[in-house]
Amino acid sequence: DFLGALEEVKPAFGADDSELEENIPYGIIYYSQGIKTILNDGMLLVEGVRKSEKTRHRSVLIHGPAASGKTALAAHIAMRSEYPFIKIITPASIVGFRDDVAKKDFLHKVFTDAYKSPLSLLILDDLERMIEWNPVGLRFSNTILQTLVTLMRTPPPKGHRLLVLATSSQRTILSQLDVVEAFDREIPVPAVQDLRELGTVLIEAGMFDPSDVNEALNTVNEYTSGSQTVGVGIKTILTTAEDAKLSEEPTQWFGQQLATQIIKYNPM
Amino acid sequence: DFLGALEEVKPAFGADDSELEENIPYGIIYYSQGIKTILNDGMLLVEGVRKSEKTRHRSVLIHGPAASGKTALAAHIAMRSEYPFIKIITPASIVGFRDDVAKKDFLHKVFTDAYKSPLSLLILDDLERMIEWNPVGLRFSNTILQTLVTLMRTPPPKGHRLLVLATSSQRTILSQLDVVEAFDREIPVPAVQDLRELGTVLIEAGMFDPSDVNEALNTVNEYTSGSQTVGVGIKTILTTAEDAKLSEEPTQWFGQQLATQIIKYNPM
Amino acid sequence: DFLGALEEVKPAFGADDSELEENIPYGIIYYSQGIKTILNDGMLLVEGVRKSEKTRHRSVLIHGPAASGKTALAAHIAMRSEYPFIKIITPASIVGFRDDVAKKDFLHKVFTDAYKSPLSLLILDDLERMIEWNPVGLRFSNTILQTLVTLMRTPPPKGHRLLVLATSSQRTILSQLDVVEAFDREIPVPAVQDLRELGTVLIEAGMFDPSDVNEALNTVNEYTSGSQTVGVGIKTILTTAEDAKLSEEPTQWFGQQLATQIIKYNPM
Amino acid sequence: DFLGALEEVKPAFGADDSELEENIPYGIIYYSQGIKTILNDGMLLVEGVRKSEKTRHRSVLIHGPAASGKTALAAHIAMRSEYPFIKIITPASIVGFRDDVAKKDFLHKVFTDAYKSPLSLLILDDLERMIEWNPVGLRFSNTILQTLVTLMRTPPPKGHRLLVLATSSQRTILSQLDVVEAFDREIPVPAVQDLRELGTVLIEAGMFDPSDVNEALNTVNEYTSGSQTVGVGIKTILTTAEDAKLSEEPTQWFGQQLATQIIKYNPM
Amino acid sequence: DFLGALEEVKPAFGADDSELEENIPYGIIYYSQGIKTILNDGMLLVEGVRKSEKTRHRSVLIHGPAASGKTALAAHIAMRSEYPFIKIITPASIVGFRDDVAKKDFLHKVFTDAYKSPLSLLILDDLERMIEWNPVGLRFSNTILQTLVTLMRTPPPKGHRLLVLATSSQRTILSQLDVVEAFDREIPVPAVQDLRELGTVLIEAGMFDPSDVNEALNTVNEYTSGSQTVGVGIKTILTTAEDAKLSEEPTQWFGQQLATQIIKYNPM
Amino acid sequence: DFLGALEEVKPAFGADDSELEENIPYGIIYYSQGIKTILNDGMLLVEGVRKSEKTRHRSVLIHGPAASGKTALAAHIAMRSEYPFIKIITPASIVGFRDDVAKKDFLHKVFTDAYKSPLSLLILDDLERMIEWNPVGLRFSNTILQTLVTLMRTPPPKGHRLLVLATSSQRTILSQLDVVEAFDREIPVPAVQDLRELGTVLIEAGMFDPSDVNEALNTVNEYTSGSQTVGVGIKTILTTAEDAKLSEEPTQWFGQQLATQIIKYNPM
Ligand SMILES: Nc1ncnc2c1ncn2[C@@H]1O[C@H](COP(=O)(O)OP(=O)(O)OP(=O)(O)O)[C@@H](O)[C@H]1O
Ligand SMILES: Nc1ncnc2c1ncn2[C@@H]1O[C@H](COP(=O)(O)OP(=O)(O)OP(=O)(O)O)[C@@H](O)[C@H]1O
Ligand SMILES: Nc1ncnc2c1ncn2[C@@H]1O[C@H](COP(=O)(O)OP(=O)(O)OP(=O)(O)O)[C@@H](O)[C@H]1O
Ligand SMILES: Nc1ncnc2c1ncn2[C@@H]1O[C@H](COP(=O)(O)OP(=O)(O)OP(=O)(O)O)[C@@H](O)[C@H]1O
Ligand SMILES: Nc1ncnc2c1ncn2[C@@H]1O[C@H](COP(=O)(O)OP(=O)(O)OP(=O)(O)O)[C@@H](O)[C@H]1O
Ligand SMILES: Nc1ncnc2c1ncn2[C@@H]1O[C@H](COP(=O)(O)OP(=O)(O)OP(=O)(O)O)[C@@H](O)[C@H]1O
Ligand SMILES: [Mg+2]
Ligand SMILES: [Mg+2]
Ligand SMILES: [Mg+2]
Ligand SMILES: [Mg+2]
Ligand SMILES: [Mg+2]
Ligand SMILES: [Mg+2]
Repeated sequence: DFLGALEEVKPAFGADDSELEENIPYGIIYYSQGIKTILNDGMLLVEGVRKSEKTRHRSVLIHGPAASGKTALAAHIAMRSEYPFIKIITPASIVGFRDDVAKKDFLHKVFTDAYKSPLSLLILDDLERMIEWNPVGLRFSNTILQTLVTLMRTPPPKGHRLLVLATSSQRTILSQLDVVEAFDREIPVPAVQDLRELGTVLIEAGMFDPSDVNEALNTVNEYTSGSQTVGVGIKTILTTAEDAKLSEEPTQWFGQQLATQIIKYNPM
Repeated sequence: DFLGALEEVKPAFGADDSELEENIPYGIIYYSQGIKTILNDGMLLVEGVRKSEKTRHRSVLIHGPAASGKTALAAHIAMRSEYPFIKIITPASIVGFRDDVAKKDFLHKVFTDAYKSPLSLLILDDLERMIEWNPVGLRFSNTILQTLVTLMRTPPPKGHRLLVLATSSQRTILSQLDVVEAFDREIPVPAVQDLRELGTVLIEAGMFDPSDVNEALNTVNEYTSGSQTVGVGIKTILTTAEDAKLSEEPTQWFGQQLATQIIKYNPM
Repeated sequence: DFLGALEEVKPAFGADDSELEENIPYGIIYYSQGIKTILNDGMLLVEGVRKSEKTRHRSVLIHGPAASGKTALAAHIAMRSEYPFIKIITPASIVGFRDDVAKKDFLHKVFTDAYKSPLSLLILDDLERMIEWNPVGLRFSNTILQTLVTLMRTPPPKGHRLLVLATSSQRTILSQLDVVEAFDREIPVPAVQDLRELGTVLIEAGMFDPSDVNEALNTVNEYTSGSQTVGVGIKTILTTAEDAKLSEEPTQWFGQQLATQIIKYNPM
Repeated sequence: DFLGALEEVKPAFGADDSELEENIPYGIIYYSQGIKTILNDGMLLVEGVRKSEKTRHRSVLIHGPAASGKTALAAHIAMRSEYPFIKIITPASIVGFRDDVAKKDFLHKVFTDAYKSPLSLLILDDLERMIEWNPVGLRFSNTILQTLVTLMRTPPPKGHRLLVLATSSQRTILSQLDVVEAFDREIPVPAVQDLRELGTVLIEAGMFDPSDVNEALNTVNEYTSGSQTVGVGIKTILTTAEDAKLSEEPTQWFGQQLATQIIKYNPM
Repeated sequence: DFLGALEEVKPAFGADDSELEENIPYGIIYYSQGIKTILNDGMLLVEGVRKSEKTRHRSVLIHGPAASGKTALAAHIAMRSEYPFIKIITPASIVGFRDDVAKKDFLHKVFTDAYKSPLSLLILDDLERMIEWNPVGLRFSNTILQTLVTLMRTPPPKGHRLLVLATSSQRTILSQLDVVEAFDREIPVPAVQDLRELGTVLIEAGMFDPSDVNEALNTVNEYTSGSQTVGVGIKTILTTAEDAKLSEEPTQWFGQQLATQIIKYNPM
Repeated sequence: DFLGALEEVKPAFGADDSELEENIPYGIIYYSQGIKTILNDGMLLVEGVRKSEKTRHRSVLIHGPAASGKTALAAHIAMRSEYPFIKIITPASIVGFRDDVAKKDFLHKVFTDAYKSPLSLLILDDLERMIEWNPVGLRFSNTILQTLVTLMRTPPPKGHRLLVLATSSQRTILSQLDVVEAFDREIPVPAVQDLRELGTVLIEAGMFDPSDVNEALNTVNEYTSGSQTVGVGIKTILTTAEDAKLSEEPTQWFGQQLATQIIKYNPM
């Protein structure tokens, strides 16, 4: 059988920076105070695990709405940690294994590899897809879930330290699965909240001429009947802006598309 | 065990045009403005994936009622894309594999093959049959579903670009399965809506003499108590018209048969 | 393991007439106008598949109450089609295979064999037993069901034509399983409806002397409190008549037995 | 693994009389008119299968309350049939096989063996235990059930005839499982109904002196507050009578024990 | 894999007395008339199976509340039977086998071994644990349950006799599982009912000085607000008394502990 | 496949003290009378198993809210027991085995190893994770649960003695799973109850200067609107205190964080 995963298992010393950067294609834009708080909290944890006397491991749940930037922020914190061992595990890392036993062995090995370094950071990206959650019939892999929780909660061997960052856009479901309480800490990531933040994003991203940004905001405002609420993830905003470039009337097109998203995510 | 699928796995450079054309036996008839919009939207995506700087992959859900022309439209867009690698995967492509593991390996391989080309287009036809959805007991293969979603959402390796077109006539169910939100874009395909559109289809298809078309429309109108609504997929209309040719009174037979379908799909 | 099925797999050119005739032990009695309509509809389909330009395959659901003659009618149409390849698949054809994978391979092979002939007809007899439907716990083999539907809906290779006739006495359940809509056409088969039709059956079958037929009808009428309704399948009627011959008072015994059946199937 | 069943598979020519007789340890007592009717109906079927022109196989469901004598009556009919091939299959025949596939192969082989004889009779004893029915969770083996139904309904090869007698004390459940309608005929077996029938059983069995029988009946009558109803199976009555012999006051002990059973089976 | 069970399989002639005695560490105390009745009933069955002409096998369900002495009583009856073959099967006998098939084979072999002796007695201890009953999700092994029921109900080969004693503290559940009715007889075992019986137990056990017994009873009475009810199994009483010896104030400690148990099992 | 567990299986003479001490990183703080009672009860059981004449094995359930110190207390009792064989089994001990059969064999072997010593103590840590309990769909491994219960309840071989200490923070669920009643004794562990106990913990832990402790208590009191209730496990308190050291205003930060926890666990 076919045993390779989409994303090749990296050598035991973990991910290099280029692999992490692939998760931050548009960089990190500081469009609100919240982003700084998130990164500060992250770095406090990074330092805590590096230095704390008795608590040598910590697990953190980074959660928020779809496309809000969870993976990018986790990758960013990881890069800034400068830990000698960093690795990111995604649903694509395990989709290629033949069954839960093979996936479990892989996850087990990832943690064992991490233990070889004195200081390690693991990202578990998209927890709910990793456990193959499906609301129809409440299906999921309890084997993968229990493996992840047990590995996450077990202290590394003496002399070793480990920080686990997990991301999810389904905190409610993880809570029903008794997984949330297994984390030591939680970091919430918000969507872009209002037109002001949206404006900051568009200007900082440099995808529209500053003059066009206003037009775009106006179009959005128009299509959403004058509401200030945005409530859409930054990833959606940036990719829509990029797609807009190919259309004939970019700002108009962008405004309409985004308004559709805003209405979808903020039903009245 | 028996490992060949009904439709042989094509060489790594994908489908040739004749395979795609088999899905468009009656050609594409431009019976309404909507058809042009669909094809435009499709070609915009084709160009977006070809040229976009940061977003090198996109997945699109083409959905609509049974027989509305989803597969033909996806095949048509694929042919016009002139991508070097095109492949269509249908339920028949995987029915011959012994179990979900074998099917998963096959799907994995299809994507891996696609990655070998700088520019690829994959059609995933009839998603709900591919995951073996059955409303009784809410049965389906979560393994195949998760595999498709994960493969679809994973970016291709650097320097490679990928467009995925999936078709489905069960959008509501896909939504409950949390699959709809995994797509970047949706393209709805309508049924033939009213007698005017039906007339256009029959004339353009050239299956009846223009004079007979009117008679056929009148028969339909009569049997549906004077309603203008059609609400039947173009595939049903075209095959019924072809069957009619064998009967003794083609227009009469066609009118009755179609009226039955109209009443079935538009219960009052 | 044991791999032979009760009914040996016939050579690739399919069933010979004697195998089909075994399904029509009492011949076909034309006891109502409906029977002719059914056979006409069947032959139209036979001709359609033989001659149609673009639609080279069709699948038909022949459904009706238990014992109403579905299998006999399908076999009769098949014999009259004079297609070069004809094959009948029944629950007994697959009961001997060890599991769903083996059954699936067999079904797959049956269709592949059919594709070798330019013109083929397959009978899938007793669909609900083939998928092992059981109302308790809504059990059935979704694997077999999906395999049959996919095989049925897939066009044969270029230059080949295929007609599939399936029988079932559980249309309601097939509809819940989303199977009915997978067929191109439906042919309903009725039970013997009233005393007049029953009389015709008994006379045509030649099992009672014409004089006794009246006595038999009277006995039935008496035991069913003067009702004209019969609502019992022709197979039940013919086997009851044959059993009656062994009893001491055949017409009396027949009348009582049939009345029991009538009451069972037509609860008041 | 362990593949032998408790009851060794007999050579292909089936059971000898001694094996059948083991199921009738106390013989057959004609304690009511109903017993004769049952045996007559059984023999009519035996003759029908032997002689009927077109219907060469029949399946019969012998059902009734626990311990009412179903197995003994089936064995008795089989012995009187004088068919050249007779075989009895019980839950103990298949309990030793490792899984449903092995059980299915065994059952398949039993029918195949039967087909080697021109005239065969198979007893399927205790259908609900054979399919491992359990009301908690509605568990049962659908594989075994479907195998039995399919084998039972399939005509034997040309020139061969087959009668299947199945027993069950759970007709209601078999009906929910869609099994009852798969039989051609049903034979109900009653419990011993009242004190008069009970008296006949005790006298014919010869286990009490005629004088003691009256005393026993009186004791029963006393403990059941003067009711005439018995409603207990003949097997329970005969084994209780035999156990009574070991006690110090046999008639008294018998009366009390039976009254307990009567109250248990006839709650007021 | 690991195939040995905790309790080694004994040679074919079954358990020796020391193995049985291990189940009666505190001996049998005759603290009420009921204990004698139980043992009498048991010995009557032992004699019945030894001598009865036609009924050579019997199965008995010994049921009662937790810790009431079921296993000890079954072992005691077995020892007094002086049958040449005696064997006790417990959950620990089968926990070590890898799966249900291996457990089934073991149970099968136990019965086959028993059949080698002309007169055998099998104890099936703790039926509900043997079938791995769990109220959450109504989980249990239907395979083990059906195997035990079928083996229990099947007569041994000619010339052989078998008595099966099964114990359970979950009669209600066994009844729902249709297991209770599969037994020929039931023997209920009560808890120690009141202070008088409790006094007898304590005196006969000789664990307290007679003078202390009164003090213990008074303490219990005090803590249960003057109730006479005990309703606690004899095993609990005896082990609590033994534990009490290690505490500083044995009678006081015993009284308090037992009162807790009494309140737990007799909620008001 | 991968068969090693995270925590290597120790040689047959069990854990050394250092392994046990790892579970008590912050030592045992006597912050209330309850802690002494727990340890006394524990040591009484240790002595009971060592000396009792007839009851040579005991199983104890140590239960309480998350982070309340269950594992540390069990490890502490084990160390003080000075039994020659001590072993701690955690979810991490078995997560690495490929399936339930492998886990079962491992657990079986642990008990068999324990039997080699005349006096053994086993800790089963985090029972609900060991059986992979998940509230969604009420999933858990009944195989592991039944194995643990059976092993726990089975007496060790003659001349051997065994004490089992199990920990759990889900007593309600274990009770529904019929596991609680399988234990001989229960020891409840409370959370830190009020500000007074919290003060004792902080002073004894020596993490804040005595002067700062008051400030910390005040901050907590403030944020919880003046409530005296704490209701948070000692592990949470100690790790929060250690994390606080890295922040800029340790007492302030500690107070806020703990208040959050208090409100989470004591909803009003
Ligand atoms: N402040 C920011 N925080 C996070 N991402 C940012 C920020 N500014 C810009 N980005 C860009 O936004 C995108 C966020 O996408 P990302 O995949 O991290 O979202 P996500 O929440 O993980 O989405 P999903 O729910 O699909 O997993 C990245 O391309 C990143 O470069
Ligand atoms: N405008 C059109 N759009 C789509 N199909 C068209 C159009 N005009 C003509 N056709 C013809 O109609 C048929 C559409 O059938 P197609 O199989 O694509 O429908 P579908 O929606 O995929 O059906 P199903 O629900 O069964 O999958 C094709 O034969 C195609 O040649
Ligand atoms: N007009 C008729 N239509 C069908 N069968 C007829 C007709 N006239 C006579 N027969 C005889 O009636 C019998 C019909 O039995 P058949 O097995 O086809 O019924 P069925 O509906 O398939 O039953 P089941 O529900 O058990 O599958 C055959 O023996 C056939 O020879
Ligand atoms: N008229 C009778 N009919 C049936 N059995 C009779 C009759 N007279 C005496 N017997 C004796 O009664 C017993 C009937 O037992 P049998 O095992 O056939 O009952 P059963 O209904 O099959 O029981 P179960 O429900 O347990 O399967 C046999 O020992 C048989 O010899
Ligand atoms: N009259 C008695 N009946 C039964 N046991 C007695 C009696 N007198 C003393 N005992 C002692 O009481 C204990 C009964 O324990 P036993 O294991 O048989 O109970 P149990 O009902 O099987 O418990 P469980 O419900 O846990 O299986 C034994 O140690 C036995 O020696
Ligand atoms: N009196 C005490 N009782 C228990 N633990 C204490 C006590 N005093 C200090 N501690 C420390 O508190 C911590 C208790 O953590 P422990 O892992 O035992 O909690 P737990 O209840 O098992 O948690 P979990 O619910 O996560 O399993 C240990 O670090 C221990 O050293
Ligand atoms: Mg993400
Ligand atoms: Mg399609
Ligand atoms: Mg039929
Ligand atoms: Mg029977
Ligand atoms: Mg017991
Ligand atoms: Mg713990």
